[in-house]
Amino acid sequence: MLDETTKGVFTIAATPFLPNGALDFDSIDRMIDAYIEKGANGLTILGMMGEAGKLSSAESVAVVRRVRTRCAVPVIVGVSAPGFAAMTALSQEAMDAGAAGVMVAPPMGLRTDTQITSYFHNTVDALGGIPFVLQDFPLATGVQISPAVILQIVKDCPTCVMLKHEDWPGLEKITALRKASDKGARRLSILCGNGGMYLLEELLRGADGAMTGFGYPEMMRQVLDAFQAGDMDRARDVFDAYMPMIRYEAQPGMGLAIRKHSLARQGIIKHPTLRKPAAGLTAETIKEIDALAARQTRRLCELGL
Amino acid sequence: MLDETTKGVFTIAATPFLPNGALDFDSIDRMIDAYIEKGANGLTILGMMGEAGKLSSAESVAVVRRVRTRCAVPVIVGVSAPGFAAMTALSQEAMDAGAAGVMVAPPMGLRTDTQITSYFHNTVDALGGIPFVLQDFPLATGVQISPAVILQIVKDCPTCVMLKHEDWPGLEKITALRKASDKGARRLSILCGNGGMYLLEELLRGADGAMTGFGYPEMMRQVLDAFQAGDMDRARDVFDAYMPMIRYEAQPGMGLAIRKHSLARQGIIKHPTLRKPAAGLTAETIKEIDALAARQTRRLCELGL
Amino acid sequence: MLDETTKGVFTIAATPFLPNGALDFDSIDRMIDAYIEKGANGLTILGMMGEAGKLSSAESVAVVRRVRTRCAVPVIVGVSAPGFAAMTALSQEAMDAGAAGVMVAPPMGLRTDTQITSYFHNTVDALGGIPFVLQDFPLATGVQISPAVILQIVKDCPTCVMLKHEDWPGLEKITALRKASDKGARRLSILCGNGGMYLLEELLRGADGAMTGFGYPEMMRQVLDAFQAGDMDRARDVFDAYMPMIRYEAQPGMGLAIRKHSLARQGIIKHPTLRKPAAGLTAETIKEIDALAARQTRRLCELGL
Amino acid sequence: MLDETTKGVFTIAATPFLPNGALDFDSIDRMIDAYIEKGANGLTILGMMGEAGKLSSAESVAVVRRVRTRCAVPVIVGVSAPGFAAMTALSQEAMDAGAAGVMVAPPMGLRTDTQITSYFHNTVDALGGIPFVLQDFPLATGVQISPAVILQIVKDCPTCVMLKHEDWPGLEKITALRKASDKGARRLSILCGNGGMYLLEELLRGADGAMTGFGYPEMMRQVLDAFQAGDMDRARDVFDAYMPMIRYEAQPGMGLAIRKHSLARQGIIKHPTLRKPAAGLTAETIKEIDALAARQTRRLCELGL
Repeated sequence: MLDETTKGVFTIAATPFLPNGALDFDSIDRMIDAYIEKGANGLTILGMMGEAGKLSSAESVAVVRRVRTRCAVPVIVGVSAPGFAAMTALSQEAMDAGAAGVMVAPPMGLRTDTQITSYFHNTVDALGGIPFVLQDFPLATGVQISPAVILQIVKDCPTCVMLKHEDWPGLEKITALRKASDKGARRLSILCGNGGMYLLEELLRGADGAMTGFGYPEMMRQVLDAFQAGDMDRARDVFDAYMPMIRYEAQPGMGLAIRKHSLARQGIIKHPTLRKPAAGLTAETIKEIDALAARQTRRLCELGL
Repeated sequence: MLDETTKGVFTIAATPFLPNGALDFDSIDRMIDAYIEKGANGLTILGMMGEAGKLSSAESVAVVRRVRTRCAVPVIVGVSAPGFAAMTALSQEAMDAGAAGVMVAPPMGLRTDTQITSYFHNTVDALGGIPFVLQDFPLATGVQISPAVILQIVKDCPTCVMLKHEDWPGLEKITALRKASDKGARRLSILCGNGGMYLLEELLRGADGAMTGFGYPEMMRQVLDAFQAGDMDRARDVFDAYMPMIRYEAQPGMGLAIRKHSLARQGIIKHPTLRKPAAGLTAETIKEIDALAARQTRRLCELGL
Repeated sequence: MLDETTKGVFTIAATPFLPNGALDFDSIDRMIDAYIEKGANGLTILGMMGEAGKLSSAESVAVVRRVRTRCAVPVIVGVSAPGFAAMTALSQEAMDAGAAGVMVAPPMGLRTDTQITSYFHNTVDALGGIPFVLQDFPLATGVQISPAVILQIVKDCPTCVMLKHEDWPGLEKITALRKASDKGARRLSILCGNGGMYLLEELLRGADGAMTGFGYPEMMRQVLDAFQAGDMDRARDVFDAYMPMIRYEAQPGMGLAIRKHSLARQGIIKHPTLRKPAAGLTAETIKEIDALAARQTRRLCELGL
Repeated sequence: MLDETTKGVFTIAATPFLPNGALDFDSIDRMIDAYIEKGANGLTILGMMGEAGKLSSAESVAVVRRVRTRCAVPVIVGVSAPGFAAMTALSQEAMDAGAAGVMVAPPMGLRTDTQITSYFHNTVDALGGIPFVLQDFPLATGVQISPAVILQIVKDCPTCVMLKHEDWPGLEKITALRKASDKGARRLSILCGNGGMYLLEELLRGADGAMTGFGYPEMMRQVLDAFQAGDMDRARDVFDAYMPMIRYEAQPGMGLAIRKHSLARQGIIKHPTLRKPAAGLTAETIKEIDALAARQTRRLCELGL
């Protein structure tokens, strides 16, 4: 079960589709295996990157079950929904299937601090005792959550055990939360998203690991290992080798298509298909990705990776 | 089946709940009967006012079936969803249950004209041949749809047969659409929302009727009848009698709670319950609503209504 | 000098232009005279309705001086600006010319509570000891200020003496602020905007008066007088007589053009000209305004006004 | 005078302040010299990075004059303003002082395509014959301008000669504009911002150069020179050496403070002061910047730069 001490690399999983848009269960199996082989300590499924909003509720349950059957690492299930009835239903299915916890992003439209804390009070009511991750991703949700509000939620809601951190800029937020827990606030686990763009600085500020879906998920493991070994030069060398691609993926609205392209190129999933509505990649974009991938391979080779 | 010639009053239906938050099917029956008795030519269910986002998919289907069983007027079902899989699933259930068509609002986040037209092209793919209402409600969705974009959708999508008009300001939009159809564009049905706040001017601009959920739904019938009888003074007298309440309901985020209070006061539904997240009404607000209702009753009495 | 005890009707003044877009100083004189004759206890100039952002800084100063020369009532000057250098400069000019205080709306883009309170701390630094009105108008600024944040600003900033209230919905906010001052918080003056749409309810909740630019500014005086005389039926009769026009003015982005049309029709200003960018009124709109004005006149006549 | 054939590196200039917030004219001189020495073909002043909104109009004019006196390269002046009166006034002052053209970003709040094109039609009226740069920066302005709208503006407004491109994602937009000019649309100059984050891909898509204020402005020259020499490997090596810092600067709302820190560290300006409202840099952030700068120096040294 997820708790405040959870650490390491939680890979955000894509949801693979066949060219006709149906779920591709064979690719789910292969992808889960690859994520774990490349160093995932856990998985997060049905997040934004998992195209969760585009699945029917039956499909969501089917994905959760398939993933749980395939692997033994902790699985977090994204359950953000327009209303609590749907959130409760999916959360219960997920926990019944053996999930370690769920993840909730606040809905677009919340503005004041009070609206945000109320929303999470209601979330706790909806989830019962299920441990949950607060996903703080203002670029996607439009909801700005200050450190003081996060600390209020941490105080009010014992089942909030982890922050998926992807505010931007967000480094000061990590520092503020760690200073608060040094002074006695409950310390929650912080795993960082944002495609890994600030991973090294996030670790320096006190994050417990990474939770993102970068197309070469071994990056998180390699950076974290070097960092934990205290070899900062090595950590920066590895991190910088991936940075041109991390930055390319960071283009809003394009990241998922780029990642699925990269995963398919590596044979991790069979098709790069996204469900509609989704922008496809142009020939120019694919050429750019492939050029970056080739350089990345060379550079990693120089680093002995 | 819904088509471009649909006219009159389509009442937006609330979804009644028991105090514990469960669906209140007895109140659904009573409410449907009341809407029709008060002059509805059709009904729109599972819209924003119907708290559609707060229902599980099973509950949505149950509501559609109950309403269709209870009445013979055309029923439009709101099917807006984060993804097309859920939209397709509910639309098919709705049409199987005998709905006359469905209603789709664009998702928050669409910005450029091209994004909007693409979204509706995808909607048509998702709906197959099902006739649909385009809900144009920027205050709620954040999506601004210009008359030129609506006309493009009308041109590209033959199954788009009606506009639920609630842009604000929106009177010039009606005029622009009617001028375009005078010059040869396909003329679609326009029913107006916005709580009825500009109903008379909307009719003067060429709207075909009303589609809103004002707490005293007979207002739409009475105004439309006087307007169609050519008695503008009468139409204005009736409209003005309701205006203080229409304006009070127009407070964003409060309208539904006010309407459910009014419906419950009139015995049309048993409980004013909303599902969470929802703000309750304070004692001050209830006092204000009741004062407005008392004056409204007196004024309507003076008008022989 | 403006302070926490200020009460009554502060009319928001338009800025009259000649057809070529130049300032129309003759109309300024006539308009100021008319506002006072129709019951203004004070004036607010260079607000959003005053097209402040469209004036050069030299023009802004010229308008302040002309208005102050023409009248003896307290004048509040809108000084909202993209930066504090411009705000400080105009504020000092305004106070030198004899203004009673200034008005500041927070800039678009502020999101968290901390950002908002910081902004007003900086505002106080920029204004020195000048008393100011906090303009709370989320529909225009996008900035949501909760009652707790207003109370924090009231506590931190002794020169914040008045709230221009035009949150929507906003009635509970007045109640919250009054309950707080009953319990010991500093009580600031609350004058209400929103075009007068909820004026009566605002007074019932504890507002000290009105600050808006409705095209028939005597409405505020008449409603307030009846309310203060304790004749609620009379207050409602008067208020309801104006409501169809108040509601028509409430169309976003159109209110100012409608008001200038009404002011010009009454001979209060010479030309209804707005500076660009500004949408003009169509023939259909003008017809609708004039029909509402005719009915309004008849109804007020029946009421002996 | 700026025209459609303008190419190369236009450095976006900071506005240096003394610790007390006053303009630092000595640092302006030194900074201008440094920018040109580091390879600028032109300069852009009083943009967002220039804290333009925080200057009084007199200060803005003083900055323009000082910069023009100091250098002979073309100078573009940012003239974005809440209204056209201020825009016209500053533009005329700028051109009188010898500017090569002006830059205009659309104001927050424009939504539909028609609103955007109308705004630029009005801009042309306000500017008379002055050549201008359209600044397309949705992350800051909230205004989404599709390629079709840019092409419409290019068609309607002959004085629109350059696009400051910083849409994100924006690579396909460059491709779309270049494809359109290949088919006969007027070809305008495209210089790219976004802090240089996608500079190499932008050049590959057909951009004419860079316009940004990265804290080590020689980067733009070095990347562009290698690119134009056809040495893509060299271009990527140089670009990648700067990328960790480019990415760090990209944190929204922090970029300017980071740049001023870097400029001050290099002795290009005397003080890193920003005018309020502005977030300062924490000790943690300064440590991170300095670590990145040290590595950057080493890596550039390895590259012989």
